[in-house]
Amino acid sequence: MENQKLGSQTFCPGTPPAIIGYGSAVGGKEREGPLGPCFDHVSQDDTFGEKSWEKAESKMQSLALDAALKRAGLHTVDLDLLLAGDLLNQCIGSSFAARTAAVPYLGLYGACSTMGESLALAALLLGGGYGRHAAAVTSSHFCSAERQYRNPLEYGSQRTPTAQWTATASGAVVLEAGGTGPRVPCVTIGKVRDKGIQDANNMGAAMAPAAYDTLKAHFEDTGRSPDYYDLIVTGDLGYLGRQIVTDFFAKDGVTLDNYNDCGLILFHRKEQDVHCGASGCGCSAAVLTAYLLPGLEKGLWRRVLFCPTGALLSPTSTMQGESIPGVCHAVVLEGGN
Amino acid sequence: MENQKLGSQTFCPGTPPAIIGYGSAVGGKEREGPLGPCFDHVSQDDTFGEKSWEKAESKMQSLALDAALKRAGLHTVDLDLLLAGDLLNQCIGSSFAARTAAVPYLGLYGACSTMGESLALAALLLGGGYGRHAAAVTSSHFCSAERQYRNPLEYGSQRTPTAQWTATASGAVVLEAGGTGPRVPCVTIGKVRDKGIQDANNMGAAMAPAAYDTLKAHFEDTGRSPDYYDLIVTGDLGYLGRQIVTDFFAKDGVTLDNYNDCGLILFHRKEQDVHCGASGCGCSAAVLTAYLLPGLEKGLWRRVLFCPTGALLSPTSTMQGESIPGVCHAVVLEGGN
Repeated sequence: MENQKLGSQTFCPGTPPAIIGYGSAVGGKEREGPLGPCFDHVSQDDTFGEKSWEKAESKMQSLALDAALKRAGLHTVDLDLLLAGDLLNQCIGSSFAARTAAVPYLGLYGACSTMGESLALAALLLGGGYGRHAAAVTSSHFCSAERQYRNPLEYGSQRTPTAQWTATASGAVVLEAGGTGPRVPCVTIGKVRDKGIQDANNMGAAMAPAAYDTLKAHFEDTGRSPDYYDLIVTGDLGYLGRQIVTDFFAKDGVTLDNYNDCGLILFHRKEQDVHCGASGCGCSAAVLTAYLLPGLEKGLWRRVLFCPTGALLSPTSTMQGESIPGVCHAVVLEGGN
Repeated sequence: MENQKLGSQTFCPGTPPAIIGYGSAVGGKEREGPLGPCFDHVSQDDTFGEKSWEKAESKMQSLALDAALKRAGLHTVDLDLLLAGDLLNQCIGSSFAARTAAVPYLGLYGACSTMGESLALAALLLGGGYGRHAAAVTSSHFCSAERQYRNPLEYGSQRTPTAQWTATASGAVVLEAGGTGPRVPCVTIGKVRDKGIQDANNMGAAMAPAAYDTLKAHFEDTGRSPDYYDLIVTGDLGYLGRQIVTDFFAKDGVTLDNYNDCGLILFHRKEQDVHCGASGCGCSAAVLTAYLLPGLEKGLWRRVLFCPTGALLSPTSTMQGESIPGVCHAVVLEGGN
């Protein structure tokens, strides 16, 4: 079958690449969540042995990628492309990690949608005949993100009820053209959506319209209904954002029975006091690599629609009174061989 | 011919997409440079009628994209993909411009290499059969960049001799699968290189090793020598960086006779007091859309190797004493039909 575009936003490699390796690295709080035993690397003090939070974030990316390569039975030299991004200004978490990899590098910025964007692009490029192996990597770190987006940790700022907790986590995925493992048969690339939400402590509400928009486009483009999938996972909308997406579909007369959000999977929301749930590029990346991909391999689900969401704001845009644009990319993951 | 990977870093669409439209928007200083009469939009006061420098940068992107679409005889609704990036924290220049476009959006971060990265990815995706039209857009703005990377303009900080002047400029390119116009038959994706330069006022020296590395890989992968091209253009290395690349090749016994740098093309370097030359994502984007592509159409050159370079630092990494990683992507542009 040939590569093709379906409908308005969905792109399908004729020969879907397979995910042959995945890896994760997380902090202490993530270790205490429901997925605790599933991660490859844990740093109890979140430093990963480094002297700054930014370096710790780069180290997480390297550890996650190493674990993914190990599972794939490959080395960095076997990679044709490395696609990575994070939340830090100028994406230094990714570019400083890429220094040590020495692989052709494509830096991405999709905020917390980056795991979807990198995975989608890697699948399309390999499906397009451009090389054999590609890696998709993202990360976020609670301490580097809090300092950059909100306040220094030492300030002890109180969090609003709609706030989410930025995950200290990195996930890496290695794909192979025509390999064996969970496949990526199609992806839906999202449009930037902005419904005027201005509260930077309510990312779920800001990103929900983008998630709804991309999911709707995906169902229209493919002619599928939500029950085609065993599991639909957005991320990181959290408690409120997930409710908004559910409400939007309910207004269309569509019930989402099989729908969850990465922001609600990573932590014990109430016990771990994370308010609306987890967030950050690393949230969906960690849920993908510690929960979804192992589950697909074990046959827990056969078809998963993985839809990371990103809030494309900056502290400057917020201070200038701007509303928050959101984006969401949907990636189809199919188990079995 | 099939899509393929050549050597270690070069990727070639079997049916090279064509550039069917291009557009540019620049500030007053750029208007006074050698390419002054060639731009589509100019704002003498650099505000583009907006209230903040960040909004002015987004506006530039919209104007450049509109001009490119107009030249292509298309509307935004005809675009299958929009690939964009800039230098601002969280790339708000691009994502806020993408709000109005409503096109499937892929945000990129390659610092000043982003015009190369976006053009390369657009060509590979269209060549891969994923849609018919894609746009690649980047921008930089002197005022938003100075405030973010260095000092507020009002501070009047003195510039070192190795400093470059961030261009207030945006360039947009529209590609068509199998269209008519300058073609993109192959691209070389760069690796991140870091030779230990720590001076954030000497970006040319920091990025030159990446440019040398990508050019060398391109020649090895394709079996071509530099004289295969009528023109090789890096960007934005400036005066010092260009000299370093020339020296590196001289040590290999290779003379680059047909080599220039976008940072030396955009301004009258001495008369306009820009020290080592122009820089910023918008520098190579403006030179591409106002000089290289029109020149290819007119038959001034037949084969151009366009190699934007990026310094992947942030103010935080500099303050933490880190060296500056660089990256360079090479895009082959062929005129004629």
